[in-house]
Amino acid sequence: MKRIAIDMDDVMSDTTGRKIEWYERDFKVKVNREEMKGKYLNQHVPIKHKGAVREYARHPEFFKELDIFPECQRVIEDLTKKFDVFIVTATMPYPNSYVYKYEWMKKNFPFIDIRNVVYCGHKYMIDADYMIDDHAYNLETFKGKGLLYSCEHNSEDTRFERLDNWFDVENFFLNL
Amino acid sequence: MKRIAIDMDDVMSDTTGRKIEWYERDFKVKVNREEMKGKYLNQHVPIKHKGAVREYARHPEFFKELDIFPECQRVIEDLTKKFDVFIVTATMPYPNSYVYKYEWMKKNFPFIDIRNVVYCGHKYMIDADYMIDDHAYNLETFKGKGLLYSCEHNSEDTRFERLDNWFDVENFFLNL
Repeated sequence: MKRIAIDMDDVMSDTTGRKIEWYERDFKVKVNREEMKGKYLNQHVPIKHKGAVREYARHPEFFKELDIFPECQRVIEDLTKKFDVFIVTATMPYPNSYVYKYEWMKKNFPFIDIRNVVYCGHKYMIDADYMIDDHAYNLETFKGKGLLYSCEHNSEDTRFERLDNWFDVENFFLNL
Repeated sequence: MKRIAIDMDDVMSDTTGRKIEWYERDFKVKVNREEMKGKYLNQHVPIKHKGAVREYARHPEFFKELDIFPECQRVIEDLTKKFDVFIVTATMPYPNSYVYKYEWMKKNFPFIDIRNVVYCGHKYMIDADYMIDDHAYNLETFKGKGLLYSCEHNSEDTRFERLDNWFDVENFFLNL
């Protein structure tokens, strides 16, 4: 059975969406995601707001009940029938995320055995056939087939096959 | 640089020691570790105590400040100079452990980058050259060289090269 390593933040959960939501709430401005192309939110906002945006992910409740991207649950459940699916999230530097991510998986992805969830930092020691990730640096060191999940910050990268949404993920693996 | 995956419970930390300590405290009996050969504590105690022992690892404070095995810190620090060291702990089923393990690593192993710590369940998707683990089932599915760290429950297993303590770990890797 081929193995797929699936990232969580900005692939399964709309982590950037929460940052934008908090930023809009705190600074009373509206962010147009279209204008963020090639940038993280902290690179897009005025320099005086950068620090605050960078700290969001360390807030005790930042990772609580993040929104799930459309069709993600259905597609991952389908994938588990044909593939060995691991959820691999580089969350170790964020201890405030640990229990929220566990609860989020248990609640929203009950069909994933918790033993198939990995909290890590680096990902280059993950042995899998496919990796779906929004960070090109994780795909650069991956020995299998890397699939770049679209997110504003990676929109300029052309080195990897790109999946824009969970319909794309479904189509990719259906057509293998 | 060759990569070593090092388990935490019963390899770096005396997890079984804490179970014994709590068991002796709760049931007013003395456990002789010599007599546990080939068994986990829950298999060694009278049947009426099994359930309580099994639950210890789920207690909110079970993983708080576990004892470290002698020489473990010094040897791991030395290993990091010549090897790519990952700490790989199958702790995902125990959310009560997550933050304690993070704090324990930060306090006692400050020379290990937190990005080199992995919380997982299964370990067969870890790509490394060496794995030090007290659970033979993790070594059975490992593609590199498996090293069995001695613990009461694995004392009968003869399938893997055995390391009894951290002097043995040091000698093994010095003599490569």
